[in-house]
Amino acid sequence: MIFMTHLECARCGQTHSADRAANRCTTCAGPLLVRYDLAAAQRSWDRDSLRDRPASLWRYREVLPLRDDRHRVSLGEGMTPLLPLPRMGAILGLHDLWLKDEGLLPTGTFKARGAAMGISRAAELGLRAVAMPTNGNAGAAWAAYGARAGLAVALCMPVDAPAAAVSAAAAAGARVWLVRGLISDAGAMISRAAERYGWFDAATLREPYRVEGKKTIGYEIAEQGDWQLPGAILCPTGGGVGIIGVYKALQEMTALGWIRRPWPRLVAVQPAGCAPIVRAFAAGRAESEFWANAHTIQQGTRVPKAVGDFLVLQAVRATGGTAVAVTDADALAGWQSLAQQEGISVCPEGAALVAAAGQLRADGFLGQDERVVLLNTGSGSKYPDLLPLALPVLDAGAEIGAAPAGGREEAGYGEC
Amino acid sequence: MIFMTHLECARCGQTHSADRAANRCTTCAGPLLVRYDLAAAQRSWDRDSLRDRPASLWRYREVLPLRDDRHRVSLGEGMTPLLPLPRMGAILGLHDLWLKDEGLLPTGTFKARGAAMGISRAAELGLRAVAMPTNGNAGAAWAAYGARAGLAVALCMPVDAPAAAVSAAAAAGARVWLVRGLISDAGAMISRAAERYGWFDAATLREPYRVEGKKTIGYEIAEQGDWQLPGAILCPTGGGVGIIGVYKALQEMTALGWIRRPWPRLVAVQPAGCAPIVRAFAAGRAESEFWANAHTIQQGTRVPKAVGDFLVLQAVRATGGTAVAVTDADALAGWQSLAQQEGISVCPEGAALVAAAGQLRADGFLGQDERVVLLNTGSGSKYPDLLPLALPVLDAGAEIGAAPAGGREEAGYGEC
Repeated sequence: MIFMTHLECARCGQTHSADRAANRCTTCAGPLLVRYDLAAAQRSWDRDSLRDRPASLWRYREVLPLRDDRHRVSLGEGMTPLLPLPRMGAILGLHDLWLKDEGLLPTGTFKARGAAMGISRAAELGLRAVAMPTNGNAGAAWAAYGARAGLAVALCMPVDAPAAAVSAAAAAGARVWLVRGLISDAGAMISRAAERYGWFDAATLREPYRVEGKKTIGYEIAEQGDWQLPGAILCPTGGGVGIIGVYKALQEMTALGWIRRPWPRLVAVQPAGCAPIVRAFAAGRAESEFWANAHTIQQGTRVPKAVGDFLVLQAVRATGGTAVAVTDADALAGWQSLAQQEGISVCPEGAALVAAAGQLRADGFLGQDERVVLLNTGSGSKYPDLLPLALPVLDAGAEIGAAPAGGREEAGYGEC
Repeated sequence: MIFMTHLECARCGQTHSADRAANRCTTCAGPLLVRYDLAAAQRSWDRDSLRDRPASLWRYREVLPLRDDRHRVSLGEGMTPLLPLPRMGAILGLHDLWLKDEGLLPTGTFKARGAAMGISRAAELGLRAVAMPTNGNAGAAWAAYGARAGLAVALCMPVDAPAAAVSAAAAAGARVWLVRGLISDAGAMISRAAERYGWFDAATLREPYRVEGKKTIGYEIAEQGDWQLPGAILCPTGGGVGIIGVYKALQEMTALGWIRRPWPRLVAVQPAGCAPIVRAFAAGRAESEFWANAHTIQQGTRVPKAVGDFLVLQAVRATGGTAVAVTDADALAGWQSLAQQEGISVCPEGAALVAAAGQLRADGFLGQDERVVLLNTGSGSKYPDLLPLALPVLDAGAEIGAAPAGGREEAGYGEC
């Protein structure tokens, strides 16, 4: 059963058809969101029916925008683990701390959710080439799903994007241009090129479907908690589609009668070197201003001005959430702590959440016993250079005896 | 319900207790395998009961070796996707070709399965420090699960191990020594150090439990095929635990009455630069000989002499399988082809399977309509340098116009 009815402008409310390719509202240029007949869905679809379905984001089929399953483009995405963090939580003073590990998705980041849905719909709508600016990981994901669908993908990304993402995108056959600049520069260049060459501009919130993929994070968190919601969800926020998607899921699941208020407080976490939404939140503004001279190792959230900033701010305020900036030094400390305490290797943007959780516990925003979920958006394996290593190198046959730097001290290394 | 009864030497059949830490058979030094009371399990456990269980390898709880679930150490491992490869299959002349994508496991490789079980049992048996030689990925996995459990992990690996694996292991707090040599050198060094310092030697098939984690691959393939088995499964083979585990799963599932013969033919795939099992198979030998001067980019299968070589050869012969060597050039071509045709980025060892499948189709071993599964053992994201890139770098504000090298030609790039 398909319940998608139309697209709706998130800014002015104008209705648009969902059955032809659309970028932004033709009236006000606002982002378009997919709407469903949730009342009809509620009558024929029960959350208990999920139990028998495969562990992928496609289990939420009734609230996904595809018309025909034959257009589904899949690399095995979704139902990522929700892991308890007992040791990390004890250190932070948060006794019910969890991490949703999106690093286990295809291409290693949560971008796979948006790409799966965006490329599936692009294929269904008969598009042949999609283009976008990217900080790296979205490009790698769209390139992979594009290859899977046989669609051409054109990408422009900062020259300092993570090597693993650049390499993966190019290997999948995407056209990749690097730019000496930021994603905002890449966005302007792609926008012009898309118009000239007839590519579909699939930049963040310039196409309606990637949000639909990302929102499944919210559905999964609710289902994995047996429909009991956490008190807060912390989300790395660059373009903002993660938090916008989770908020949309909360709205839809409430309409479906699956969950009730109070909703989790949604917390936008940004790098201190590029925190336009944190600044706008603090100033009580409805939109952010362009952040000059953005600089951070949290590259995925290095977005000086997000098209969907107003939606992020709405989601944060409507849920009683907040917005927090984290320095790169604090993110790195969180990264190392999470690896050593829990064995989880996260991306720099996910690492920032650890520091943010500590700040929010310290200032009383988070209670020690409430359930808090960190949305880790990607795997740390793409960032092998975050930690400087000085490991001993031995000749074959040498005796292992001296202790290399680092490592846990508390247990069992013999003489080391 | 726990059905584990004892350990059994895979070489001489000697029985050992499963309730204290054990390395190898005290009679003949052979590897120990875990045995269960499968007749009792069959009476109380139905495969249909799996339907309601979480999508992790722990769904096969009754045939896993843990005594007490409180000792379970988990990072969200298991039930990796089984993906159809329609385009790749058409090129190879294999019309029912699939890929089991183990790159979506924690730490990015199938080593997570073995580490989850090995570390869980190590914790249950009260061990405080485990040590092993590794080509990189097993070390990263055991370091991560060790951190999760609070166990100390000591690793020795070749100095040219993948940077992402070395970095991940060290970040998780493991002690890491690099050696100018091969895993065989590392193994001898770890073995001596383990004895000196009282570490538990958890090298491949020197501890009984990692096979139990790996065997869940076989259970998953059977369940994902609705208990209809593929005609062949191609496995990268270094230490051999993957193929040994899948074979053990076939034996157990048959005893449980869940599947019937004919079993899939198991195919061991090795690098041409280190193919001791291929050589032994061709020569009709029961064991392999040490491969001198091993050299390959397929580092995970660069194992000159595997402790479990005789078990691999038994599994291959008992199922009517075979053993195939793949050159690095052919593996690279397979890697690129899979990325471009299907959007899947695999590890070099997984890439070799594409070439192996092509060889086996060409020589008639594989039929064009039979179901063939490639067991991709890890994510390609740890290998960003496999493909040399020459991408255009533009200044901010420049026009996108010239076509960079590479990319798909068939569709929609405008002027490019």
